[in-house]
Order: sequence, then structure tokens, then C-alpha cells
Amino acid sequence: MDLHLDLERAAGATLRARIENALRDAIRSGLLAPATRLPASRVLSAQLGVSRGVVVDAYAQLAAEGYLRARQGAATTVAAGATAPPPPSLPTARAATIRHGLSPFVPALGGFPRSAWRTALNRALRSAADERLGLPDAAGVPELRQALASYLARSRGVRAVADQVVICNGLRQGLGLLWRALGADGAQRIAVERPGWRGIAETAQDAGLDAVPVAVDADGLVVDQLAALDGIDAVAVAPAHQYPTGAVMPPARRAALVAWAQEHDALIVEDDYDAEYRYDRQPIGSVQGLAPQHVVYGGSASKSLAPGIRLAWLVVPPQLVEPIAALQRRRGGMPAALDQLALADLIERGELDRHLRRQRRRYRRQRDALLRALAARLPQIEVQGAAAGLFVVLRLPPATSEAEVLRHARALGLALEGAGAADPAIVVGYANLAEAAIASVVDALAASVRSAT
Amino acid sequence: MDLHLDLERAAGATLRARIENALRDAIRSGLLAPATRLPASRVLSAQLGVSRGVVVDAYAQLAAEGYLRARQGAATTVAAGATAPPPPSLPTARAATIRHGLSPFVPALGGFPRSAWRTALNRALRSAADERLGLPDAAGVPELRQALASYLARSRGVRAVADQVVICNGLRQGLGLLWRALGADGAQRIAVERPGWRGIAETAQDAGLDAVPVAVDADGLVVDQLAALDGIDAVAVAPAHQYPTGAVMPPARRAALVAWAQEHDALIVEDDYDAEYRYDRQPIGSVQGLAPQHVVYGGSASKSLAPGIRLAWLVVPPQLVEPIAALQRRRGGMPAALDQLALADLIERGELDRHLRRQRRRYRRQRDALLRALAARLPQIEVQGAAAGLFVVLRLPPATSEAEVLRHARALGLALEGAGAADPAIVVGYANLAEAAIASVVDALAASVRSAT
Repeated sequence: MDLHLDLERAAGATLRARIENALRDAIRSGLLAPATRLPASRVLSAQLGVSRGVVVDAYAQLAAEGYLRARQGAATTVAAGATAPPPPSLPTARAATIRHGLSPFVPALGGFPRSAWRTALNRALRSAADERLGLPDAAGVPELRQALASYLARSRGVRAVADQVVICNGLRQGLGLLWRALGADGAQRIAVERPGWRGIAETAQDAGLDAVPVAVDADGLVVDQLAALDGIDAVAVAPAHQYPTGAVMPPARRAALVAWAQEHDALIVEDDYDAEYRYDRQPIGSVQGLAPQHVVYGGSASKSLAPGIRLAWLVVPPQLVEPIAALQRRRGGMPAALDQLALADLIERGELDRHLRRQRRRYRRQRDALLRALAARLPQIEVQGAAAGLFVVLRLPPATSEAEVLRHARALGLALEGAGAADPAIVVGYANLAEAAIASVVDALAASVRSAT
Repeated sequence: MDLHLDLERAAGATLRARIENALRDAIRSGLLAPATRLPASRVLSAQLGVSRGVVVDAYAQLAAEGYLRARQGAATTVAAGATAPPPPSLPTARAATIRHGLSPFVPALGGFPRSAWRTALNRALRSAADERLGLPDAAGVPELRQALASYLARSRGVRAVADQVVICNGLRQGLGLLWRALGADGAQRIAVERPGWRGIAETAQDAGLDAVPVAVDADGLVVDQLAALDGIDAVAVAPAHQYPTGAVMPPARRAALVAWAQEHDALIVEDDYDAEYRYDRQPIGSVQGLAPQHVVYGGSASKSLAPGIRLAWLVVPPQLVEPIAALQRRRGGMPAALDQLALADLIERGELDRHLRRQRRRYRRQRDALLRALAARLPQIEVQGAAAGLFVVLRLPPATSEAEVLRHARALGLALEGAGAADPAIVVGYANLAEAAIASVVDALAASVRSAT
């Protein structure tokens, strides 16, 4: 190793890079037009006071990159097509000024356990063997599948071995795989809740399935209506806390749903998106635990931690594991290995449960304060939904235009969702609603409702 | 701030964690059976010599985790189902014993910059505003799009503003979006390299496009053959380093490719998967820089950092940004926000360049040693491909069965890929090949070739 030589090389490379950059810029900007003849390397090197080899190398590099055209025995020229001006920056849509995010889909981001997550990430990064940095197993890293099988067993009554857990990049991403796998197996029509979370119908339609709507009442999906339909291969349902009605499916309805699936050899796709949050009692167990062979259970870290983490899971009957994993591999949808290992660590050390206990207290307090303010300032509005999850539903007077209320609320700085149901209603997510802001938010809601009635 | 109190709190937390762990283990192991009554917190705290609050908190935590059942006015008991022995694991396919991973797709995982990545992750976690933990922007976090636009401009001659960069979860995932967006815009037939990386044709076919093969020669994709085809909407090509031939497309061919795209108003999809690695000279610039309006540029952190990171990018003409981002949002394919922020930080602080310089030296050394060993022990085999990337191609004698060589090599503990070209050839990735192992690997290769000739 000759240090002197290395230094010389570095100096040469830097000079060359500077010459290359100057030429590249001049060509790109149009300063040097196509077909322009460049000075001979001997001439330019003398002008610049560098050795000729540096200029020869720079020309060669730019010729290799396609900016210059070099031919044996002819002058080097600027290549055709090398000067197109860069397209201007795209105009970006100006978002309306949102002062209060009332999305029912986003947990309290200020409550994200940054310190515990950092610890978990650092532990994963320190302890993962090198090969764990390769392409992750298509169904997820074994540690997380194991941690979730055991966590879901004790917290949600899910009955499955780790091999039945498939990790995905958010529930939408996982549903995309599930519907495609079911379609490849012959499924054509699935039933979905109306009203319901639009992600279900959208992902099913994108996978080429028909999404047939079934009504929802105070007990959740109306199973009698489902049973009256023909040729339904699967039904997507949120029994623990229906979105957007907030209904909790009682035991009798759950039993009827399971009986329907068994009778028709159909699949129940259980969306358990926010079941960790129940404020008046222990959360109701999963339907999966009642009929593991007939249920695909879907859960996510989006409500328990944060949507930006991009981790969710499907617990599926054994015969569906390989088809779904094969699709995940083929699509390259696996979430980052270190994030998966970090979540496994967070669960195993009880940090997720600790976090959820804190969050439950927080949300219960925020929900109670919101309900008090609504009762005081909007007494004519009926509040609907179980003491659970991250939102309440406000039933609007029958003649009210839901869209009009939303438009008015947005103008007042509130970002919220309509229920999209037959009767007008709006969904108020309270997870990111500071107690100090509740009075002004409820006033704005009251004004919006009045304006549209 | 009361230091005394803080210390007490810390001690309390540690004691509680130890009590929780002991109870959890006892329940999981079956030592404490379901319905077992636990001692009253007053009794246990006296036994253990800790304050009662510590035991009350530990019981509450384990109740939240589902291990215990706590009811007002009744003894705390072990929950049903908390001890169920896990059902047996599904049988997993036994992988053949691989002693040497020679995949051309995996960089040196032992060289992953763990410390720099931890620093970048921690900086992202510390500095990200709360709202960054929500659903990430569908096109990627602005910091990473900006960092990549500038990094790719200087390292690859890519000409684009940050708004044209779309972040995806690996290149396969991004290609899935791209093909679907092109298909929605009327595209039906794309041209692909044969031989080529199978991910291109697979993702295109999954999106409903026809993938028409075009031959590859020593200068890469044969543009004359492409030009003879009708109705081609886009061509996927790896000009900087074709897989698996190792060909580098020279300037004249690149110019012809661009002219074809301009003439047919078609798109070039440039797969720049490992262009950071060039050992004999500076890497050739991107085709995108020659014709930004006609090229979608695809790159990835899979070769420069690790596939487990799951970060890749498409640089697209402005009119394609919104269609691709809308699909990404609808599929929920966005990679984790913190990972995106960490990569932006890694690039901005020059750590990625530093890492790549180290890796280039390493790979060059490994490649040279492999070539020397091949020349000494397999002199009759022609080695093909530019001094670039993470693999060499060995052209086998004409009558050799590629499949037979691969089978024999696998039996000897080598995991490698066939070229899948007209003439038999195998691809030897050397990124994870330790110098000490080269002699025995080349001997095994020689034995495999002999056995199949």
C-alpha cells in the first residue's frame, strides 16, 4: 500500500470529478448544446492546468454516461438528447388548515412509547444474526409470529400456533394478499358490512372479488341477511367493535355467524382493529377462538402503537399460510426485519401491555370528557357505540346533510369522518383530542350541525 | 425534580418487573394452574418484603396481559387458557444444509453498518414530530424523497425533483405499483430482458401485462430486436449491469434505446439494482439522466445496505407520481416512516457513501480472489461480466446441463443460481463469500461442473 500514490489518486479523482460535474452541469443546462465540439484534451488540460490524463478520464466518464460522444480520430462532441431541461417541481396540493385531527383511525401519536420502541429496536439491531438482515421470511420473522400467537391467545383468546401467523405491512396490505389467495382458490363473492371500513371493500374489489354489502344493526352484522345471500365465500366483520357504528356483536349473534360459516363452509374474516381498547369491561374475546378453522383473524399495531410502524398480522387456518406467504414473497410486501424483531421484543417484555394500560386510561379519560361536553352542549344529539375503541358516533337529526356538516366542520379546522350509513351520523375520533381542546371542538361541532340542519 | 423519588420509582419498577416475570413464567410453565387463587397482595408483599403497591401493580399488569383474572371483591386467580400448552408447531420444510450462500442478490450482511443505522434510527425516533408516526405519505416521507433526489443526481446522474421520487417496500413492491399504474393507463405489452431478473416479468404478469422477451448480448438488451416488435408500451432494462449476463450497455446502445423510446413514445424502466458497485472505473451514469421524460428509474437499498431494510425507490416522470402514490395508499404498501427517516439521515450525513466506499473495497478484493482461484482451478471456464456488482457468470461447456451443475453444487453445500440463458451458465455471488472459503467453494464448483459435463 503506497500512501503517496493513494493521495495522488485521490487528488486526481477530485479534480476529475470537478471537471465532470462542471461539464455535466453545462450540458444539462443547455450551455453546451448537442453536437458542440469540446476542446481537445491537450488544449483543455493546458487551460485548466491539470494533467492531460485527468481530462481524458473525465471525457471518457461523461461519454460512458451518455453526455458526450467520443469517436476515434474525431473531436469529442456533446451527445444528442443530453440537454433536456429538468421538469419543474410539481405543484403540491395545499392542505386545508387542520387544527384538530379527529380521525377514528389514528391513536394518540403523542403517547407512542418512543423510549420502549427505541430500546426494542436497539436490542433487535444488537442481537439479530447477520442473516436476519437478508430478505425476511415471507410469512414474517419467527420471533414475531411466536410472540403474537402467545399474545393473541392470552389477550384475545385466539387459538393458533405461530406457524399460522402471517406478518404484513398494515392490515390493508395483508387483506390484499388474503383476497387474492382466496380468489386463486375459487372465491368470487364476499360479504362486507355496510356501513363499514372502506379498506375491506376496496382491497377485495382490487383483488377481483365482488363485495356484497350486508346491513349492520345495534348488534353488528345482521347474520340473517347474510344467510339469505347465495354463493358467499367469505364475510368480513368487526365483531369486537364495528366501524363506524361502534356496535359489539353479542354472544348469540356470534354463535349464529359461526354456524353460518360452518354450514356454508365459508370463511369469517375478523377485523379486530382496535379491540385492545375497552373501557367498561374486559374486551370480548375473538370469534377466531370459537372456530379457528373458519376464521381469518386480522389485527394490527396501527391502533395499539402507531400506523407509521406498518405492522399487522393475519392468523389463518393452516392451509392458507403457504398461499398467502407465496404471494407476499412474490409482491415483496414483507415489512422490515428489524421492525418485526423489535415488535416481538416489545411484546415479550410486556412493554406493549404496559403501554396499552396507559393508553386505556388516557382514552377513557378523553372519552368521558368528550361525552360530558357533548351532553352539555349538544344534548339533542344521540351518542352511539360501546365504551371502546378510539371514536364515538354522533347521530345527526334525520334531515341533516352529513356532507354539509363535514364541510362546515372542516372549514372550522376539524378533520373528521362521516359514518356513510343510511341515517346521517359523524364519527369523532378522540385519541388525539387534548382535554383542553374539547370545549372548542364541541362548540365547532355544534355550529356545524346547526348550520346543516 | 426529586432525585430520591425517582430512584425509588426505578427500584419499584425493577422489583415489579421481577415479580411479573416470576409469575408469568410460573403460569406459562403450568406451575400455577388455571383458577389457582393467588395470595392477597397484602400477604404476598409481606412475604416478599416489598411495598403492597408493587404487588398490586404487578397483578394489574398480568391481568391486562391475560394471565390473571382480577375481579372486584374476589381473589385474583390464574386465567383460563393462560397455561394451555402451545399446540404443536406445523411441520416446516427442512432446508438443505447450505454452507456457502452464493446468491447474487444479497450483499455482505456482515458488513451492514449496524452502528450507523442505529444512530440514524435513533435520530429519526428522537426528532420526528408526533404526526410523523401516523400513516406515512403514500409517495414516501419528504426527507427521504429529497435526500434521494440529490443523492441520485450526484451518484447516478439522475435528473429529477424530489416530488418525482416514490418510496416503496423493495423494488418488487414498487414494480407492482408501476405496472398496475401503466396498465390502468392503457399499457398492455412490455418488453423484458431474456435472460433477466425474474422479478420483472413476474410483477408485470401479476399486473395483467404481457411480458415479451428480448435477447441480451454482450452490450445488454438488443435494441434492434426491441425495435422490430410492435405495440410495446415499455421496456424493462438493466443498462448499468445486466442480470445475469453482467453486460454493461455502451453509449451507442443507450442512445439507440432512448431514441426508440422517444420515437414510440414508450417508457424505459431502468433497473439500477447494483450500480453502486463498479470496481474498475466510475459507474456509468443512468439512462434516466439522458431522457427523464421517458424513463422510470428504479433503485433499492437491498444491495447497498440489506434486503431486510425493505426500502427502494422509483423516480418517475411527473404525470406518474400521483397514480402510483394512489395505488400505494390503497394497498397500504408504504414502508415504516421511521425507517424512511433513518435512511434519509444516513444519506444526508454521508454515511451511505462511506459505507459504499468500504464495501466496494471489500467486494473488489473478494472478486479478485475468486477470479484468481477460478483461473487456477477451472481454467477451461470462461468468466463473463463487467467488474461490477455482486456476481460473476461462469459459462459452462456447451453440452453441460445447468440444472445438473446446480443440483450437484447444492449437494455440496453451495446455494447459487443458474443464468437461465440459451447457453448454460451459472451465477456466482461473492458478496458473502469469505476469502478463506474461496478455495473450497471453487473446488466444489469444479467438481459440480465435471460431474455434469
